[in-house]
Amino acid sequence: LEILYYIDLFGTLVFAISGVLAAIEKRFDLVGAFIMGFVTAVGGGTLRDVLLGQTPVGWLTDINYVLAISVGLLICLVAKKEVLKLRKSLFLFDSIGIGLFTILGLQKALELGLHPLLAILMGVVSAVFGGVIRDVLANEVPLIFRQEIYATACLAGAVVFYFTDMLTPLSWFPLLLSMAVVLIIRYLAVRKGWSLGLKI
Amino acid sequence: LEILYYIDLFGTLVFAISGVLAAIEKRFDLVGAFIMGFVTAVGGGTLRDVLLGQTPVGWLTDINYVLAISVGLLICLVAKKEVLKLRKSLFLFDSIGIGLFTILGLQKALELGLHPLLAILMGVVSAVFGGVIRDVLANEVPLIFRQEIYATACLAGAVVFYFTDMLTPLSWFPLLLSMAVVLIIRYLAVRKGWSLGLKI
Amino acid sequence: LEILYYIDLFGTLVFAISGVLAAIEKRFDLVGAFIMGFVTAVGGGTLRDVLLGQTPVGWLTDINYVLAISVGLLICLVAKKEVLKLRKSLFLFDSIGIGLFTILGLQKALELGLHPLLAILMGVVSAVFGGVIRDVLANEVPLIFRQEIYATACLAGAVVFYFTDMLTPLSWFPLLLSMAVVLIIRYLAVRKGWSLGLKI
Repeated sequence: LEILYYIDLFGTLVFAISGVLAAIEKRFDLVGAFIMGFVTAVGGGTLRDVLLGQTPVGWLTDINYVLAISVGLLICLVAKKEVLKLRKSLFLFDSIGIGLFTILGLQKALELGLHPLLAILMGVVSAVFGGVIRDVLANEVPLIFRQEIYATACLAGAVVFYFTDMLTPLSWFPLLLSMAVVLIIRYLAVRKGWSLGLKI
Repeated sequence: LEILYYIDLFGTLVFAISGVLAAIEKRFDLVGAFIMGFVTAVGGGTLRDVLLGQTPVGWLTDINYVLAISVGLLICLVAKKEVLKLRKSLFLFDSIGIGLFTILGLQKALELGLHPLLAILMGVVSAVFGGVIRDVLANEVPLIFRQEIYATACLAGAVVFYFTDMLTPLSWFPLLLSMAVVLIIRYLAVRKGWSLGLKI
Repeated sequence: LEILYYIDLFGTLVFAISGVLAAIEKRFDLVGAFIMGFVTAVGGGTLRDVLLGQTPVGWLTDINYVLAISVGLLICLVAKKEVLKLRKSLFLFDSIGIGLFTILGLQKALELGLHPLLAILMGVVSAVFGGVIRDVLANEVPLIFRQEIYATACLAGAVVFYFTDMLTPLSWFPLLLSMAVVLIIRYLAVRKGWSLGLKI
């Protein structure tokens, strides 16, 4: 499905932008911004590939991922103000990104014969650990440790995908449904200050 | 030696509990607690497997490790107070855990033909780096950097195991002796505020 | 080229010293100092090897790297004052180290058939990520995020090496030229408070 490849690249670009914006907030320099964009965009998938032994990791075999990250950095440099204004629209693309990253990671793990529970876990790792590594590098406690809804949305999307993909021969339906689940959960969470109350 | 497998799983559970307790202290949410328990329990072994190229890493090939971690999380959720009271007894199990993790890591590295010094190092890494990653994620300086006795105990256990295992055909003796060494060093360290004075 | 191997070991020793000095500043204990020296010295190359799937990683197949790191630690322990005084001379060796690490990483990646841009990136990662991991463990924002000239020097060295190595059959010329580029850029940067002004 070639369109998935382009959505993946676009998700990489959007994730890179979110990393670069975090770097700008922290007043890092250009190298710092590039690294922050980089790890945010490919950190989760890289960790998944390394844990699975799928090396060289994905972005080392296809120059387009580094190009997408570079474009993201460039956009932030030439249009910082506009990007900051567009943050709400970015939210939409970001949600599409994590939804897709979750599902691609899940599928990759299933193909390697992992236990479904572990494959779902790998899907969530693919989507959220880029942000974890970004926060660690920025010397912050990972955002996800205090905003669990982000990972919960990925988890829900992964579970929905796993079961609908098993039950239906329609290849697009599981993808669209699970991405809609991710998007709706995140939208409700932000709009209503909603969290699953998963405090301990 | 099947019993080793169950001790390994039990050590994983105990390590997960210590990670979850650290997350509770930091007021992370449920996702944060799960991740903290997870990296504390399997972080060291995962790093060892990745460095050695033994992938997919161990816990991706056996669902029981994730289950042990989940049980550890569940115990903390339903019996937080009791777990906190039992912390001293946990210390015993924790020491058994690091002793075993050290030895299993050492053996794995030796089987792959590593130089004995490097195999001993890999044993210590298996035991202590879960805690290092936990502390990094919690945005703390790794505890081990200021309480060297923890790593020293593992190192002593690994050295004792290596030499007794070489010298004796009794497969249980090296294991029990080296785990006793780890336990005694840690006990003395805590009881007497003892440290090897390895300040620099 | 056997001499490259010895320069590599020497660079490892110098990098280890810089990690140990950072640990002393932070008042870590001996174990902390060893780990800090270790990750500073081999962290970048280890990350590169893991991403490329070249495992077991380099220092697990040759005990001399751990010995070089141990010697670095020992030097700091017995001659802390002298080492601190020599910091300026260390700068020279450190620059030789990062120059060489960059080029060795670049070559390794090219040999594996990576896209030249990605190979250059891997060269820079080999040289600078040891320091990034050191700073993360010390609970600091990576120095490189605020002093971009360090990575810029490596990048310039890698680019110069790539093109001269392609254009000339003289195997020593590209190496010496690119290492001189790294050294000169860093020298100018320190001497003149020079930075490329790559602020964002």
